[in-house]
Amino acid sequence: MSINEISANKSFSGWHKQFTHTSSALNCEMRFAVYLPPQMEQGKKVPVLYWLSGLTCTDENFMQKAGAHRMAAELGMMIVAPDTSPRGDDVADDEGYDLGKGAGFYVNATQEPWAKHYQMYDYITHELPQIIEGNFSVTEQKAIAGHSMGGHGALMIALRNPQMFVSASAFSPIVNPMNCPWGEKAFTAYLGDDKEVWKEYDTCYLMENYLMEQTDQKIPMLVSQGEADQFLAEQLKPEALQAVASKKSYPLILEYHQGYDHSYYFIASFIEQHLKFHAEHLV
Amino acid sequence: MSINEISANKSFSGWHKQFTHTSSALNCEMRFAVYLPPQMEQGKKVPVLYWLSGLTCTDENFMQKAGAHRMAAELGMMIVAPDTSPRGDDVADDEGYDLGKGAGFYVNATQEPWAKHYQMYDYITHELPQIIEGNFSVTEQKAIAGHSMGGHGALMIALRNPQMFVSASAFSPIVNPMNCPWGEKAFTAYLGDDKEVWKEYDTCYLMENYLMEQTDQKIPMLVSQGEADQFLAEQLKPEALQAVASKKSYPLILEYHQGYDHSYYFIASFIEQHLKFHAEHLV
Repeated sequence: MSINEISANKSFSGWHKQFTHTSSALNCEMRFAVYLPPQMEQGKKVPVLYWLSGLTCTDENFMQKAGAHRMAAELGMMIVAPDTSPRGDDVADDEGYDLGKGAGFYVNATQEPWAKHYQMYDYITHELPQIIEGNFSVTEQKAIAGHSMGGHGALMIALRNPQMFVSASAFSPIVNPMNCPWGEKAFTAYLGDDKEVWKEYDTCYLMENYLMEQTDQKIPMLVSQGEADQFLAEQLKPEALQAVASKKSYPLILEYHQGYDHSYYFIASFIEQHLKFHAEHLV
Repeated sequence: MSINEISANKSFSGWHKQFTHTSSALNCEMRFAVYLPPQMEQGKKVPVLYWLSGLTCTDENFMQKAGAHRMAAELGMMIVAPDTSPRGDDVADDEGYDLGKGAGFYVNATQEPWAKHYQMYDYITHELPQIIEGNFSVTEQKAIAGHSMGGHGALMIALRNPQMFVSASAFSPIVNPMNCPWGEKAFTAYLGDDKEVWKEYDTCYLMENYLMEQTDQKIPMLVSQGEADQFLAEQLKPEALQAVASKKSYPLILEYHQGYDHSYYFIASFIEQHLKFHAEHLV
């Protein structure tokens, strides 16, 4: 679990850093980024927010464009931004932007040629937290958030690991990948044709079915959706999540924002609200 | 002076937009970006901050990475971010990142093959403000700021146009381009070997010599410099500006920041201070 620091930039009195490491889950060399709030240099242990990015992203998009460091510094919150897929010349890929590298969809692939490296679910839920907790002075308190494909990842992972995360949030998430073109393409490739398997990775299905006997483990969720998002109707379908949440009395806050699109300008505009939401639960 | 809107993203209740237009100063098609604060949609005229970017940048770097929209929205300030050079297939270029496209240095080139298009000084001081004032509901109040090569541009342009700008600020500026490798290379190419001509574009020279009989037109200046900036000693030399400012009793605030480098993480960390500095003078 050794990690190699490859960059460091002081930011809002804390540090943005990038690390590489050999991932046993993914069978390749990976890079991730962290924001270390100034409280850590003062010897304080801090909680961790995991941020999962969307299609085509690396660890860099969120760190450079979300404007999150200011509030993370104020709240004393570490942020961890992993990459969105395995990487390297021997990792299988696809010509489309929505499959292969940059498009891991946070699942454990069972199909060829993907299974050897595309084990992002294990990477995010097991290997990466072990690395973080083994190398940084953090508490055990964790929250998870993400955007689009990463919003799918954050909500899905939170629902499947209610003991692990205290809160989950998403911008413009793919909430029902079983029923949208992005999800159908990726799940068919990574998981095969048996849709029973797909259910394990579908936020709407999980919220409706996994929680029936776990009423004490409903992780608070905040979802922000731009009304001018070009992917809203075809890919994102937040109304499907709202319907399940209502049915199951799930503590979901779903907010629509007039005029905002799918870009990082939307994320930057509301990241303060998301970080404060997590901070309430990370005490 | 017609402009063509090519993108629009809602951001902090205002709008980030990109426009293209045919520049007569630069003899080519140009792109610029604006941030329009929410006050403009409410019919209020707002003042304008011009932001000049550094080497290799376009209009996008500042808008995506500086985290400036939040405070511009709060203060009711429009931001205009031009490109850093003329663009297009028939525009002369160089293999180096520090000459040619992305490296206009905000001068009017007199030498071949640059003179036909590299007239960035005229573009920033005449054509672009006319376009902004002709197409947006703004007041006549203007401030100017920039980073690195754009910090040079902002301070130099402010000193030469004290009637035009109410305040100037810079992150990590090249304050003495006559005496550093970046400046010597660019000025030799664009302006030729006669260093008398170079003086018109050198902030240190201008502050020392242009203002002797204009004591009532000393535009307030704020300069922020990271102490861990990899270009500090060889290229930036803020101590030279401090020396001239002291000699001439110029209202320069020069602040060093321990640990910060040349990146946009530094800019993001202190952009709020810069925007508030300009807002004080833009009333």
